[in-house]
Order: sequence, then C-alpha cells, then structure tokens
Amino acid sequence: MTRSPQDAPPARPLAETERTRHRRLREQGSLDRSDLDSILAAGFVCHLGVTVDGTLTVVPTAYGSDGETLYFHGSVASRSLVAAPDAAVCVTVTHVDGLVLSRSVFEHGINYRSAMLFGVPRPVTDPDEKLAGLRCLTEQAAPGQWDYARRPSRKELAATVLLALPLDEASVKIRTGPPEDGDDPDAAREVWAGTLPLHTSWGALVPDPLLRPGIEAPPHLAERAGTPAQEA
Amino acid sequence: MTRSPQDAPPARPLAETERTRHRRLREQGSLDRSDLDSILAAGFVCHLGVTVDGTLTVVPTAYGSDGETLYFHGSVASRSLVAAPDAAVCVTVTHVDGLVLSRSVFEHGINYRSAMLFGVPRPVTDPDEKLAGLRCLTEQAAPGQWDYARRPSRKELAATVLLALPLDEASVKIRTGPPEDGDDPDAAREVWAGTLPLHTSWGALVPDPLLRPGIEAPPHLAERAGTPAQEA
Repeated sequence: MTRSPQDAPPARPLAETERTRHRRLREQGSLDRSDLDSILAAGFVCHLGVTVDGTLTVVPTAYGSDGETLYFHGSVASRSLVAAPDAAVCVTVTHVDGLVLSRSVFEHGINYRSAMLFGVPRPVTDPDEKLAGLRCLTEQAAPGQWDYARRPSRKELAATVLLALPLDEASVKIRTGPPEDGDDPDAAREVWAGTLPLHTSWGALVPDPLLRPGIEAPPHLAERAGTPAQEA
Repeated sequence: MTRSPQDAPPARPLAETERTRHRRLREQGSLDRSDLDSILAAGFVCHLGVTVDGTLTVVPTAYGSDGETLYFHGSVASRSLVAAPDAAVCVTVTHVDGLVLSRSVFEHGINYRSAMLFGVPRPVTDPDEKLAGLRCLTEQAAPGQWDYARRPSRKELAATVLLALPLDEASVKIRTGPPEDGDDPDAAREVWAGTLPLHTSWGALVPDPLLRPGIEAPPHLAERAGTPAQEA
C-alpha cells in the first residue's frame, strides 16, 4: 500500500491492552494505526475465530473495512455468524510476503503482515448502515461492482446477517527484510541466505459460460485483470 | 494441485462428526480425503485458533503436514502455543483462488479451498519425532532447505515447542467455477459475469545484504524463483 502524504491520517497510535500487548518478538509488533489500515485495505478475506456450540472455530470469510469498523456477513443460516453476536471473536487478516531463508533452519521465517482484531461484533440492523456495510464489503473485494451489479433486494437484505466489529482493539505484526543471522557465526558457512518474495496477482477474466453474447467486461474489471493484487 | 493416477491415495472418505458436518452450502463441502491432502500440501501458513488466557485468538503460523499429522511450532515463549496443549484448537488453511463476479451483488462470492482441523494438539517430546516434525515443517515452506541450511542444534531444539495435530477431524470446503445466476432472471441484465482468478507466484531471490561474495543460490532455490506458488 502506498499512501500519499496528503491523505495520511493523523498520527494515532493503537492503544495497547492486555490482549494486544506484544510480549515477544517485540520488533515485529506495530502500534502505528496506519499499518493496521494498510493491512486491512490490502485484503478481503479474514479468518474469523468464534466459538460455535462450545467449539472454537476458525472460518475464512470476506470482510470490508471503512477505517473505523470491520464488516463481515453471511447467510442467516451460518452457524458461526449466528453465534458471533453473543461472544467475543478474533478476526485476523494476514498477508504472506515471502520466505526468509537463513543460514540455519532455526532462523528460517516468513515475511508477513498481520492484523488481529478483538471484540464483540454488533449485528447491524439499521437499513442504511446495513446497505453501507454491504457496499463496503463488496467494494473491498470487487471495487466498482456495487455500482455495476444489481444491488440487494429487500428480501436479500433480510436474509443477510451483517456484523460490525470496531477497530478499537488491534494487534499488528509485521516482519520484513533479510535474515538476521548475517552477523552470527553461521555467516561463515557456505550457505546462501536471503528472501524469496511471494506475489499475488489477478489473472485474466473468465467469462461465465452462460454469459449472453455481446456483453463486454466493464473497464473496472478489465483494467484489474493482470495487475498485482495485495491479497496474499 | 494435480495428482497423477498412480500416486492417488486409496479412496478414504473423511469421517463426519458433529463439528465437521456441512450444514449449509452443502455443495461446497468435500468428504474426499485427497482434497484435504491437496489443500494442506498447497500451503505453508495456517490460522491457529486457540484460547489464550480466556481470550479466543487466531494466530497465523507456519505448518507442515506429512499426510497424517499437522505440525506447527514456535518459541517456548509463545503464549498461544504454550496454551495450546491444554485446549482444543482449530487450524484452518485457506487458499483464495479468485472472485466470483455475479450479476447481482448478493450472488458475489469467492472461489477458495479451505481445510479446518479440530483437535487437541500433542506436544512432541520424542527427539526423533521432533526432528522429523521440524523437517516436515521446514520442507513444507522451503523444500530443500533442511538438507542445505544448518540443522537445529540441541539448544535450538530445546527452545522449540513442536505441536502435533492429527488430521482425523477435518472439514473441507471448496468453491470453484462460474457464478450461479446464469439461469436466474438476473441473466437478462446487461451485466458481465464471470470470475477473476487470483494467482500467487514466487518472485526473484533477494540476497541478504550481508551475504558473503561468491555464494550462489543453490538450484532448489534458484529454480523456484519466478514459478507459480500455491500459497494464496
């Protein structure tokens, strides 16, 4: 994520709580709010940890973030989302950026960016907020589609549970850069060391086999195909 | 993952339990053991859900799978791993394969493959199993490095908590293919529909700035650079 100076948010450190205080690998913890925003902006799939019928469950699900609130949704029938309003959840967004190939196996690692959010999600019932939250969620994964595809009907809205989690309590961890054993005794070994970056990119658009002839992909989709993606 | 017929495992369905029975979107649930194996083989980062000091926490962490057991590890100081031996965990591996761009926002979705494992992890204390598990974990992320980099010392082994989770209780979900509204009334709309695949690939090797001159990257790393990666 690049952010130009004029749209940088005011410096606002993340509050530390008992749950988000970094206890080890302190150098990987970030208390910079803009890191949280960047990590959330770069993805569209989170891992939602929630207790369902007494069982801790980690579910991948789509999300949207407007900078204050993280929205995620699902069918009314989804067990984990029906369970979530009653209980604290943890939502984690992770981008894997590459391998850290050190001189020793023990020092091997992964370059990554992750944000962990804690809180009790609030079901969104206000119709206007529900539409805004669904728009946020849709545009996070597929920018341009809210104004292009058919918007939700009243019936579809009723069938959707939308949950809102504030970004108040977050733990951000980032690891970048080369291995750290370049000044260890291991550096004398004849072992190559460095990193192997992992990239994600959008492929070519694949038309639905049932697409009626003569319908071209709109520019917001055509221009995205073949470009780098942040989702990792 | 492509699998040639001769190395296909014997057909072995995944056992359904109360936790893994698919209750909705049944078409996305797989009870095929080879799907579980493929999904685990295609990645190296999982999301570990574990209760730490009473707080549900979802932590991204590296894993290795030998087809029977999933291994994950960490420093002795890691709170979530110290907590894990006492409690049931959920480990989820997810690959995001692309966007499903339907005619309506409501039908938008994500093509993905995910495996969710439930169980109580066992700390690995036997030295031989510990070495084998660490090898599995290292080779999952960085094939070839176990035989190339310096192996763990006795001290390093002692500082590593290795946990083993059997693959016995798993829930596998897969969504592939085009949108599903091609025969809905929405298909009459002038809206393009299809999928936008997401690809991951390894970039070019980045040497450690402290790498001594004259050390070339070994073939197992040089040949991996620039190739498609399964990790998504």
